[in-house]
Amino acid sequence: MDRIGVALIGTGFMGKCHAMAYGAVKAVFGDVPVVDRAVLCDVVAAHTAKCAADWGFAKSTTDWRSLLSDPSIQLISITSPNGLHREMAVAALEAGKHVWCEKPMALTIADAEAMAAAAANAKGQATALGYGYLRNPALQFARKLIAEGAIGEVFDFRGSVDEDYMADPALPWSWRLTRKDAGLGTLGDLTVHLISLAQELMGNISSLSAMVDVVHKQRPAAGGKMAEVENDDIAHALVRFASGARGVLSSSRIAHGRKNGLKIEVHGSKGMLWLDNERMNELNLYVAEGPPEQRGFRRILSGPYHAAYGKLCPAPGHGLGFNELKVIEAAELLYAITGRKSESVNFERGIGIEKVIHAFATSAETHRWVEV
Amino acid sequence: MDRIGVALIGTGFMGKCHAMAYGAVKAVFGDVPVVDRAVLCDVVAAHTAKCAADWGFAKSTTDWRSLLSDPSIQLISITSPNGLHREMAVAALEAGKHVWCEKPMALTIADAEAMAAAAANAKGQATALGYGYLRNPALQFARKLIAEGAIGEVFDFRGSVDEDYMADPALPWSWRLTRKDAGLGTLGDLTVHLISLAQELMGNISSLSAMVDVVHKQRPAAGGKMAEVENDDIAHALVRFASGARGVLSSSRIAHGRKNGLKIEVHGSKGMLWLDNERMNELNLYVAEGPPEQRGFRRILSGPYHAAYGKLCPAPGHGLGFNELKVIEAAELLYAITGRKSESVNFERGIGIEKVIHAFATSAETHRWVEV
Amino acid sequence: MDRIGVALIGTGFMGKCHAMAYGAVKAVFGDVPVVDRAVLCDVVAAHTAKCAADWGFAKSTTDWRSLLSDPSIQLISITSPNGLHREMAVAALEAGKHVWCEKPMALTIADAEAMAAAAANAKGQATALGYGYLRNPALQFARKLIAEGAIGEVFDFRGSVDEDYMADPALPWSWRLTRKDAGLGTLGDLTVHLISLAQELMGNISSLSAMVDVVHKQRPAAGGKMAEVENDDIAHALVRFASGARGVLSSSRIAHGRKNGLKIEVHGSKGMLWLDNERMNELNLYVAEGPPEQRGFRRILSGPYHAAYGKLCPAPGHGLGFNELKVIEAAELLYAITGRKSESVNFERGIGIEKVIHAFATSAETHRWVEV
Amino acid sequence: MDRIGVALIGTGFMGKCHAMAYGAVKAVFGDVPVVDRAVLCDVVAAHTAKCAADWGFAKSTTDWRSLLSDPSIQLISITSPNGLHREMAVAALEAGKHVWCEKPMALTIADAEAMAAAAANAKGQATALGYGYLRNPALQFARKLIAEGAIGEVFDFRGSVDEDYMADPALPWSWRLTRKDAGLGTLGDLTVHLISLAQELMGNISSLSAMVDVVHKQRPAAGGKMAEVENDDIAHALVRFASGARGVLSSSRIAHGRKNGLKIEVHGSKGMLWLDNERMNELNLYVAEGPPEQRGFRRILSGPYHAAYGKLCPAPGHGLGFNELKVIEAAELLYAITGRKSESVNFERGIGIEKVIHAFATSAETHRWVEV
Repeated sequence: MDRIGVALIGTGFMGKCHAMAYGAVKAVFGDVPVVDRAVLCDVVAAHTAKCAADWGFAKSTTDWRSLLSDPSIQLISITSPNGLHREMAVAALEAGKHVWCEKPMALTIADAEAMAAAAANAKGQATALGYGYLRNPALQFARKLIAEGAIGEVFDFRGSVDEDYMADPALPWSWRLTRKDAGLGTLGDLTVHLISLAQELMGNISSLSAMVDVVHKQRPAAGGKMAEVENDDIAHALVRFASGARGVLSSSRIAHGRKNGLKIEVHGSKGMLWLDNERMNELNLYVAEGPPEQRGFRRILSGPYHAAYGKLCPAPGHGLGFNELKVIEAAELLYAITGRKSESVNFERGIGIEKVIHAFATSAETHRWVEV
Repeated sequence: MDRIGVALIGTGFMGKCHAMAYGAVKAVFGDVPVVDRAVLCDVVAAHTAKCAADWGFAKSTTDWRSLLSDPSIQLISITSPNGLHREMAVAALEAGKHVWCEKPMALTIADAEAMAAAAANAKGQATALGYGYLRNPALQFARKLIAEGAIGEVFDFRGSVDEDYMADPALPWSWRLTRKDAGLGTLGDLTVHLISLAQELMGNISSLSAMVDVVHKQRPAAGGKMAEVENDDIAHALVRFASGARGVLSSSRIAHGRKNGLKIEVHGSKGMLWLDNERMNELNLYVAEGPPEQRGFRRILSGPYHAAYGKLCPAPGHGLGFNELKVIEAAELLYAITGRKSESVNFERGIGIEKVIHAFATSAETHRWVEV
Repeated sequence: MDRIGVALIGTGFMGKCHAMAYGAVKAVFGDVPVVDRAVLCDVVAAHTAKCAADWGFAKSTTDWRSLLSDPSIQLISITSPNGLHREMAVAALEAGKHVWCEKPMALTIADAEAMAAAAANAKGQATALGYGYLRNPALQFARKLIAEGAIGEVFDFRGSVDEDYMADPALPWSWRLTRKDAGLGTLGDLTVHLISLAQELMGNISSLSAMVDVVHKQRPAAGGKMAEVENDDIAHALVRFASGARGVLSSSRIAHGRKNGLKIEVHGSKGMLWLDNERMNELNLYVAEGPPEQRGFRRILSGPYHAAYGKLCPAPGHGLGFNELKVIEAAELLYAITGRKSESVNFERGIGIEKVIHAFATSAETHRWVEV
Repeated sequence: MDRIGVALIGTGFMGKCHAMAYGAVKAVFGDVPVVDRAVLCDVVAAHTAKCAADWGFAKSTTDWRSLLSDPSIQLISITSPNGLHREMAVAALEAGKHVWCEKPMALTIADAEAMAAAAANAKGQATALGYGYLRNPALQFARKLIAEGAIGEVFDFRGSVDEDYMADPALPWSWRLTRKDAGLGTLGDLTVHLISLAQELMGNISSLSAMVDVVHKQRPAAGGKMAEVENDDIAHALVRFASGARGVLSSSRIAHGRKNGLKIEVHGSKGMLWLDNERMNELNLYVAEGPPEQRGFRRILSGPYHAAYGKLCPAPGHGLGFNELKVIEAAELLYAITGRKSESVNFERGIGIEKVIHAFATSAETHRWVEV
């Protein structure tokens, strides 16, 4: 496959991110098809047309269903609100398209499972979910170190994912705070990322005990009234991995000062490593070797010897940005589409993440440990 | 009271620490009695006599009971193995002595309660437990900021306490790894410190769900055999505070790379603060004020405007050390003894900490949330 | 101008970087012309053709002079070895093309001045030099803070630029280590970046006293012999700015552990700020305001409120990468070309940087302070 | 020698610091004489008497000359204003006393040389200067690593020493800002520390080019007038070491945000190390060994395996404070007095530091490189 035609649904933060990734991936990686940006789709015609022109799409539309029958399109990116993911993704798969859908998969586990079923029934199309942080070369280097036994047997995982986009209690109420239209809160927005990293490094989570809370229970709505916040601000859990290892996960969308506060620690019998997404080009590694007087955490700056870093930059320590992780994500999806070895997070694997956040909710409601 | 006579039981790490604190506290604080170092007590006569000479004690003994009737002694420091705390502390209190006992209080909650009862029945003597990290000026500044509302209503606490003194699985078995002789493991050694900080800043913990594990289940013993490790390597919990706030606590004595890894974060409605004991002279504060473009965590170096720092050093940023926290601890105890306002952690308050670690154990065994 | 045709000379590190920037700039910024990647030029035909295909260039050539008369080209990027910059840039300008040339300008000050003269004589074409670090939103925020007086009158500048690409004394000799073919060493590769930042924030340097050394004087060459290193490993200087302020600059290409170690500090009468390129998304700001007990350096993560950050990412703290600075650099050049307000570093301003590094060399040779 | 009688002149910051060191050194080190705190001397009788009582001195006086003939005194600490050092130190040495004098030695190089001459002519007494930062175990570990070749041949030194105690331009004028009464400014207060570290690690400085400035030229004096500041706010230099290595030193007493900002970097052919006194329990080490993908700066926390740390604390990472460096300093002096191997900085070595700061002044005045 030399070329691939893509359509993109959505022109928001993630929409632009996918567009930039499609524009860059061939130049960066080389060994992928040329990406033809065919159609951009969103609800406001004029804005969509302007974005299409700027982002290099051949045309624009407000009718996402028109993409399904368009033979110039082989791959559809879905960056619409989460409540639309199921309908769009299932339709796209049934129409024979490859699908790249942003996370979380859907508002309910039933919807997510319907998506996974559609993927399982598809005729060989690839699916991918937007877990870009997994593509961070520093994270992949952590995974490699663990796989090679550099820190021994891993037995404890500590992770947190915190942002402050809802931290101000005076921020207004919106539909994003309802269960019906937006589903879960922090769990769907943030916790899923943490789980994706935890399972990447430690294997599957098998059981957990969680605490899920709305802290700022009401927010100002139209007309000077206060309206109920329905979805979670905070979600913490103790977890047990299938391997027998254990861990602690915490997450909050109301954590003042955290902008991309995704941090993990992996404890092993021979060492430890940790990573903080706010300094995403650094991996910190401690190995219990050599004279004790010389031991310490090593701050390793990402470089061309780490995963895909070298495709983007030959100079170590110069640093990748958030958007560039999406370029790597696009490459992995194109590898999957073209039948190559791929690290892409498909819908089947995505279900494994969705099940965990829904287990959080169940555990918190029942005040008990639950199996995932 | 112009002078006070003290005896010290124990010549190990904590024993020397108490000795140094007694030697310094009058010079540092001025407004406390002169401390007469009367008797040093430990089991090996020659070593104890040598330490007494070096540490400025007038004499030494191997008979701790002889201290009880010695009229030159008003205060006894107990830094012996934890299994001896109850007997010594109760006897000292019954003999009319003030008591400064290292943490944890005892091997069992029953023993700790017996100590608290002895303190309650005492004729006005003061008791103190060795929670020195509470005396860190940076921590006390955090407490002040919270009390003043600088970060608004506090609703989330994250804390961990990790060291690596047992991290190497090849470290030999010893009596310290038995329940009978040493009681709890990480919970008694480390977790108690974390709880002391959590309760200092957030109020009491009311319920929790915990996970307590022995990870390295056997260690090499004499004769080339492996022996069972009975007490906990790792202790994690979700906690609920009486205030309604929540939190996550994690702790490990097998965390490679952590040497004094006691870290806390307090999340509030207007800001956040965090502290890491490995950089104990720094408090990090984020306040959601001013233009967003200028917001960030402020690294505040301890200085003479923070709690007792100025007694030890008039120059900001020059830094206190671990031992100096013990000097402040000694001063607070002397304030309690002389009837002044004191922050000393007495046995009654200590019981509040012991109950929490025993609730960890119960929760882990029953796999349920438990009330403290 | 709706569209602009570009040619790119060079397929190395900087060549790919320019190509990625051309591919992204319209999508990222919107308010610039569409960039038509017309011709890619380098010396090896097959490799150049492959790169052209991957990077989205319509065709490729090995004859850079053919670009001069190509009417589809309005802008030429020059990323060839420094010794070729003069000839190519002057020819391009004489042919009526806009020019984006990598730094340093040339091997000698005479060559750089010839380039500046060609730019001055051009018929309105824009020129730009590859000082991408100036485009870092954190750096531009520093500049804005200084301009607004946030840290008062600035009087002291500390800067260093260190990498370790030549740190191993056993690295082989090459033509890059000769004066004839490569010109200056660290001064041309690294120090120019530091000077660009210093002059951006403090105004022009007027005099200096420098120390410029070859430390690893010989390196292994072909045939098992050692060959002389002719250009500088290390270049340090005391500087005086035209404003009367002062500063210290240090630079090294043999600084083990530094991968992109460009650090600056600006001291003012009301505060201080500092920045480290290895953590390029952070600006550290101290303002002497508020109660002393609450003062500290604020770690401000870059966000959409900082310069061009928001064009690339709406979410604060998610972080830009090195390559994205080049996208901003491209936008600024396109602004200059289209007659808009631009921050682009043109050849005239570039000469101001070249003069400083040549003053380093003169001062070091004469062992005296020199005027720039 | 089992016991030694000491007198202490001065009750300020350094006076209390010496008193605490004398009170602790026997307990901490054991292998030194018992210190009898005989006499405390300062100008205000009541305050001195109060301090003597608190600090454990047997008596107090306001007549420093009375110490000279007191047979109970073998060692005199001089922490009086710098202008008094010469007279007191020379008299003490002539009276046969050992002397511990705070830095800098004196207001002029002539005075410092007179002190060194008195030391040279003494009958075996020891002298010591208050360069406590040299006693930091992290710094001594750096020295050990360098001596063992861990970072290869060292060729570049970067250092800065910055505080902000005079940073506010509105701080009032005082005698401390005059040459006559206070001598040099930043050079005497701060730069001497940096030089002490530079020479400890790199050997002697042989020549330098300096820039020494008063930035805030006038400060508010009594009566609403402005008065001239005579001594230096800022002192920067390029230096050449006798070994052929080079370096850059910067220093400022008007550096907002720096509280104890003494930082050094040592660059070697096989690695690099750096240290920041605001985090004095950490040494950062990079060694160019092992696979490049695993290289990074190691943050090594001080522990009992580093120099004298273990005398103060057996637990790594628990951290020493500023005051404890003075305890180690006292021990080294007592080792010198008792004829043991000692790292104490005596007057002869102190002259080597004084010569450098005076060379700074000469270079800045003449605008030339000068030999030290």
